[in-house]
Amino acid sequence: MYEIMLSLDGEGTKSLYEQIYEYLKDEIRRGKIPCGEKLPSTRMLAEQLDVSRSTAQMAYEQLLSEGYIESVPYKGYFVCEMDELYHLDSAPAMSEENEITETNQYRYDFTPNGIDLEHFPYATWRKLSREVLQDDQKELFHLGDPKGEYALRKAISIYLYQARGVNAQPSQIIIGAGNDYLQMLLSRMLGTEHRIAMETPGYRHAYDIFQRLGYECCTVSMDRYGMDVDELQESGADIAYVMPSHQYPMGIVMPVRRRQELLQWAARKEGRYIIEDDYDSEFRYVGKPIPSLQGSDVCQKVIYIGTFSKSITPSLRISYLVLPAGLLERYEQVGRSFSCTVSRTDQKMLQLFMERGYFERHLNKMRALYKNKHDTLLAELRQMKGIKKIFGERSGVHLLVQMADQRTEQELIACAGQVGIRVYPLSEYCLDDREYETTIILGYAAMKEEEIHTAAGLLIRSWGEGTAADAERTQLRPDDKQCCVDWSGQ
Amino acid sequence: MYEIMLSLDGEGTKSLYEQIYEYLKDEIRRGKIPCGEKLPSTRMLAEQLDVSRSTAQMAYEQLLSEGYIESVPYKGYFVCEMDELYHLDSAPAMSEENEITETNQYRYDFTPNGIDLEHFPYATWRKLSREVLQDDQKELFHLGDPKGEYALRKAISIYLYQARGVNAQPSQIIIGAGNDYLQMLLSRMLGTEHRIAMETPGYRHAYDIFQRLGYECCTVSMDRYGMDVDELQESGADIAYVMPSHQYPMGIVMPVRRRQELLQWAARKEGRYIIEDDYDSEFRYVGKPIPSLQGSDVCQKVIYIGTFSKSITPSLRISYLVLPAGLLERYEQVGRSFSCTVSRTDQKMLQLFMERGYFERHLNKMRALYKNKHDTLLAELRQMKGIKKIFGERSGVHLLVQMADQRTEQELIACAGQVGIRVYPLSEYCLDDREYETTIILGYAAMKEEEIHTAAGLLIRSWGEGTAADAERTQLRPDDKQCCVDWSGQ
Repeated sequence: MYEIMLSLDGEGTKSLYEQIYEYLKDEIRRGKIPCGEKLPSTRMLAEQLDVSRSTAQMAYEQLLSEGYIESVPYKGYFVCEMDELYHLDSAPAMSEENEITETNQYRYDFTPNGIDLEHFPYATWRKLSREVLQDDQKELFHLGDPKGEYALRKAISIYLYQARGVNAQPSQIIIGAGNDYLQMLLSRMLGTEHRIAMETPGYRHAYDIFQRLGYECCTVSMDRYGMDVDELQESGADIAYVMPSHQYPMGIVMPVRRRQELLQWAARKEGRYIIEDDYDSEFRYVGKPIPSLQGSDVCQKVIYIGTFSKSITPSLRISYLVLPAGLLERYEQVGRSFSCTVSRTDQKMLQLFMERGYFERHLNKMRALYKNKHDTLLAELRQMKGIKKIFGERSGVHLLVQMADQRTEQELIACAGQVGIRVYPLSEYCLDDREYETTIILGYAAMKEEEIHTAAGLLIRSWGEGTAADAERTQLRPDDKQCCVDWSGQ
Repeated sequence: MYEIMLSLDGEGTKSLYEQIYEYLKDEIRRGKIPCGEKLPSTRMLAEQLDVSRSTAQMAYEQLLSEGYIESVPYKGYFVCEMDELYHLDSAPAMSEENEITETNQYRYDFTPNGIDLEHFPYATWRKLSREVLQDDQKELFHLGDPKGEYALRKAISIYLYQARGVNAQPSQIIIGAGNDYLQMLLSRMLGTEHRIAMETPGYRHAYDIFQRLGYECCTVSMDRYGMDVDELQESGADIAYVMPSHQYPMGIVMPVRRRQELLQWAARKEGRYIIEDDYDSEFRYVGKPIPSLQGSDVCQKVIYIGTFSKSITPSLRISYLVLPAGLLERYEQVGRSFSCTVSRTDQKMLQLFMERGYFERHLNKMRALYKNKHDTLLAELRQMKGIKKIFGERSGVHLLVQMADQRTEQELIACAGQVGIRVYPLSEYCLDDREYETTIILGYAAMKEEEIHTAAGLLIRSWGEGTAADAERTQLRPDDKQCCVDWSGQ
């Protein structure tokens, strides 16, 4: 019988039974105690090590439950047979992996993806969170409806009807953690045997996601009314992804006639769908918001996708689908199994935020703020020499600018970079190989009004005075969007 | 030229420009103003309606932006040509759709999916949420890392190493909103050209999700050590989904030898993987927790999936994957595009919960609470006559019971239902057609100790005294899990 050579440490952080268990496990793993070997009985082990019998028992129990030893009735404990063991002994190679943070080398960033967080309703959100995280709200901590909570879906349904002309029963609404997730979920309902037509220039991220989900994607160009329906027809696509209320990034508002043509295209063939991405239609500074395409859809062909990323904050991770009748059935068959991806407390907070009128007030406040920023930027740009065209104004949170000279987007970006300003090329949004006119995108949501003022002033001087040659000299790595242009001291 | 017949209401809720816009839109939609018709100039319209010229201008602007009219330079405004319009005029059919709530007809529910919410750390959570939702934490409201925040991944990495023996760099961890979502994401990395072997009886939900994601699934039976590796080999599967630390629902702990066999099976062929679902290994009442399979994996074959659903609350919607090296590369290629599905504020709260030791304290508290509930139920059941076997004890939050007589699961469920108690059949978890011994699952996490005491007492009388004939009489719809047995007055 195997002899145990172990001195226990009564003062250590490990309990006695753990020390015995680890010693024996180690001996077994190293082959010091061979397979089939009988171990001392718990009574003998206890005596030998001068511990209580229950301590010995606990050590054996642990070895038993992990499968190192087995207990044979009336015979005792034996080491199990096992194949050569992999070794786990070495400490984990927890190398000091550090967070990679992108350092922003720019003084001003005209990102089209920003939002104004200075005016996020932190206090209201804290108040709602305090209210929701109460012991008497226990039901919120159980798993909820896969579609999302009914009360939130109802609040969204009312909002969508009033603000966007969307006809949606709460039962048609599916809440999910972001558009990417909802595209994923949608792919389960639609299947991937479809060809999806996307507007170009368009929303590259959605295009990438569809491709990664296994869809064949094609691009359809736009005229000034939006997606070209004849080209769509020829493309062989059966799903059209459009942003009719405010196309991203071109800012086109699709007029009624084109909408009708698009709906007719969808109605002409079984299985065709239009995905209407209505990502930022809340922000329109002239006139009333443009009603949704979904509201004119009598043939149940429109899948509407909305989000609170622009209207509240992208970190909230709450988006929603409004499904037409046919897909709602498919959802019940294949989609319902997927648990909702948004926590119930977050859903409840958003529901209260909407029901109590905070959302409406927030939207009105943000619309006014964004309008001021929009007006400031527009007024500045109108003073710029050499500008050919400004478009995409009046709604959303970005403008597009074309210069009259021959500079490329990369040259203009480099010029701006020289004075510490980051601007964005339209080419990033071009999903095909066609040539597009040099266009720069200027997002203004995340900047303060005075920053817009200063940054636009710098931009005017830079673009107005700089030349293509200057730009080339300082353009270190033209294709690298992260390229760091040193503006210090300028 | 078209003559406008409109009387404006200066007192109404609608502004003058809106009234003009709506009147004209309506006239165009009804065909009262034909296509191509010229509208009065803004000056004429203003005079005619006695409004300011800017009001007339705004009405036209709205019609222009929605595409009802067009402006021809130096000529004026003309009604656009458009195909016959669908009508949106009718009020939305917002029928009074009501929330369907499942009414629980049972006094006591031994659900194996419950958790104890009486002891959820509401106050701590509120405190953390107050701290996180501050204006100076603005960066939390931007979109974060697609993998989840680095600091949270680091906290999880440390926890996993200490508590589960999992070797995971933060970079290997992907945070997502629930296991269903992570299975979806995983399917993007793995592709669906795989055959997945699942344990039976096993976790039906994961099985369903894989099927809905397009995987071919097969089942592999278990002996008392867990999944049968020979059968796995024969099944032709290349992915094995297992719960080695505490199999659900059978409660089997896979011993070292079987783990080695499983790892060797995976290592034998390129492209094979083991998915280790470690859903509730935090709760073990005898001895130390069983280390993870991932910790013994030297061949980068184990995909580890963990969750906070059991250890904190399912409504939190935070789970995580630990990816082996090969799949991490695939993630960078195809998975990184998908934005993280968990809000950054929730991630931050969980990070602080872990870093500050709240999580450890919470786990210890819950382990002690669940152990008491476990002991209470076990003590009660041991008094029951006619019991053949109790198993799956010592860890997790449910037990399994087999009776010595010939009653079916449905009969036992009906008997229990008669006294207001809901219990669960093992057959729900059987993923193949094989015959399994009649077994009832009793979950105890969601019940109070005194409730367990009372409910177990009732169950003992019901099962001990009731007969199959009694049960049959009251068994209304045996296949309907929601069948309502009236227990009132009993």
